[in-house]
Amino acid sequence: MNKQERGWKQIEELAGSKGIDAMKEVEKFSPRLAKLALEFGYGDVYHNDSLDLKQRALITLSSLITQGDAGRGLTYHFHAALNVGVHQSEILELINHCSAYAGFPKAIHALHIFKSVVEEREKNNG
Amino acid sequence: MNKQERGWKQIEELAGSKGIDAMKEVEKFSPRLAKLALEFGYGDVYHNDSLDLKQRALITLSSLITQGDAGRGLTYHFHAALNVGVHQSEILELINHCSAYAGFPKAIHALHIFKSVVEEREKNNG
Amino acid sequence: MNKQERGWKQIEELAGSKGIDAMKEVEKFSPRLAKLALEFGYGDVYHNDSLDLKQRALITLSSLITQGDAGRGLTYHFHAALNVGVHQSEILELINHCSAYAGFPKAIHALHIFKSVVEEREKNNG
Amino acid sequence: MNKQERGWKQIEELAGSKGIDAMKEVEKFSPRLAKLALEFGYGDVYHNDSLDLKQRALITLSSLITQGDAGRGLTYHFHAALNVGVHQSEILELINHCSAYAGFPKAIHALHIFKSVVEEREKNNG
Amino acid sequence: MNKQERGWKQIEELAGSKGIDAMKEVEKFSPRLAKLALEFGYGDVYHNDSLDLKQRALITLSSLITQGDAGRGLTYHFHAALNVGVHQSEILELINHCSAYAGFPKAIHALHIFKSVVEEREKNNG
Amino acid sequence: MNKQERGWKQIEELAGSKGIDAMKEVEKFSPRLAKLALEFGYGDVYHNDSLDLKQRALITLSSLITQGDAGRGLTYHFHAALNVGVHQSEILELINHCSAYAGFPKAIHALHIFKSVVEEREKNNG
Repeated sequence: MNKQERGWKQIEELAGSKGIDAMKEVEKFSPRLAKLALEFGYGDVYHNDSLDLKQRALITLSSLITQGDAGRGLTYHFHAALNVGVHQSEILELINHCSAYAGFPKAIHALHIFKSVVEEREKNNG
Repeated sequence: MNKQERGWKQIEELAGSKGIDAMKEVEKFSPRLAKLALEFGYGDVYHNDSLDLKQRALITLSSLITQGDAGRGLTYHFHAALNVGVHQSEILELINHCSAYAGFPKAIHALHIFKSVVEEREKNNG
Repeated sequence: MNKQERGWKQIEELAGSKGIDAMKEVEKFSPRLAKLALEFGYGDVYHNDSLDLKQRALITLSSLITQGDAGRGLTYHFHAALNVGVHQSEILELINHCSAYAGFPKAIHALHIFKSVVEEREKNNG
Repeated sequence: MNKQERGWKQIEELAGSKGIDAMKEVEKFSPRLAKLALEFGYGDVYHNDSLDLKQRALITLSSLITQGDAGRGLTYHFHAALNVGVHQSEILELINHCSAYAGFPKAIHALHIFKSVVEEREKNNG
Repeated sequence: MNKQERGWKQIEELAGSKGIDAMKEVEKFSPRLAKLALEFGYGDVYHNDSLDLKQRALITLSSLITQGDAGRGLTYHFHAALNVGVHQSEILELINHCSAYAGFPKAIHALHIFKSVVEEREKNNG
Repeated sequence: MNKQERGWKQIEELAGSKGIDAMKEVEKFSPRLAKLALEFGYGDVYHNDSLDLKQRALITLSSLITQGDAGRGLTYHFHAALNVGVHQSEILELINHCSAYAGFPKAIHALHIFKSVVEEREKNNG
């Protein structure tokens, strides 16, 4: 399996068919950005055992909250974190922890996005 | 034990006598900032079981790398992460992971600070 | 009056019943983040006479403009600044001042949010 | 021609009648911010031959992507870049380049905004 | 008095002969950046009565703390704030306030720079 | 030639033997971060004809100035920009341009680093 195939498989594990669709949309408009994200990000960075997927989810979410991600990245990675087994209570506490390190406005912004993600999942599973 | 006492105890667990000394220095110049950091940060945010200290270390380091911390915060929290049992290999991979989410310049900046931290600890233990 | 009660009272002074409602919404989804914001932010940080509420409003708005707040924080704190007596002309000049220190894109982004806040207040008072 | 007149002319060259309209809207609510942007930004900074308009477009877009511009600035300056002759393929590669220096979340956020800009232009020219 | 002369006068009021020297150093290497800073920043932005110099100092410091200024800007503007009459206690509380809005690492970083500024002034006045 | 070999060659073109040495130092402490930077950054991102090396230098520098790079990255990439043929006058104007988009503090911070780079090169060529 080459890096790109590993990348697609990794996206599926993190984000399911919705993740695949999102990357296909990127690929349609910019095949090269999709290729870089697949090979480098999902195929290479994630392909290493020093950290497991739950640890990577905490690191990713903290980075996105701190950089003030406008919404797309946080929505995607809140779903991904829940998909790989991070508990809702762990994500809520991660947001609390970030309030001390990145300030309350970014924590509260993230909380509202996480709330939408949880509500969407409940609706789909309801 | 009140929040402030819990705060001092938490600092000691994370950062030992050097952490205590650093906060004492803050306290001498700004008693109120030290009080806020102790009561809110260390006494309250950290005082919750939804995340353990190793998970908090990953979240803190990712936030500091992403916000481009100039050095003091990263140095303190690289030590703290190693003190609470995060392995050197996990921190190195956290830096790799951040290269994809916050860019290479911040990852490489953090790597050089981490290298200094590791070298200092080896010298002191040597 | 304990810190949490002080926090609710402070929110009411800054942001009125809409502020109370916003924090109640946070509290419903994350009681602990609301508690941290109330006790630390509104109950403790604001509870100090070295700066008055108008000065704090200038500091808060400059921080939010500089960190590129996506909208929720700026909307809330533009209202709060007007509520505690900062003049519209002072806020406009604060945005001008920030253009030199944080760049024009963030200043113009903030201006459009402030314009919506002013228009909403005029409609409600009209 | 004074700085302000040069500023209006520069906006027209970069952003056409839509750019003029956007600045008129800023001017109506904050005459002084419009004046500062016109005289300093467009009338003075841009009025220098050491860099041409295509080079300035690359620099502006990289700054906006890196600061995580929420949308208004990126939309405006993607249009401006295309208007002064930067090719679509150059902008796509600029976004790829930024993925290494500012991280993938900001690159992918920018890609979606650029996609909207391209689609809008195709519709208007269709 | 033209904008540039106003700019030099404004720098002197804010930062005294050290401020003049710092801008002369910028001017020697980049006459145009000095001219832009003098005419736009000090000659134009500051030349407006909607905010006084103490209010501008609070806004500037909050922006610099929030953007994680590495040191030069904070050192210059801590001196300037004290020069125009902002009390040391107000600056300490501004740093506390920023801990809630921009996070503790940036607040503590700023505190150490402010401490150096205060110590330098005490030594010079001692 | 594989990606990693292309990466080393690209570094040499940008940054000469000093660049090679810097990456060897990274590689010694973190072989995997060096590999990611070489294969993804230098071997893949740079390996595309849609932008030439001078355009990439403008984009990189604007990103580093905007993210408030502490020094290492800016020093490296100011050298690289001069090495691939960006004129000193173009870099000075890039810094001026960034003052409008990222604010004066980051522009002036970058100017001082660029000054050191120019002085070092003059000394070595003197």
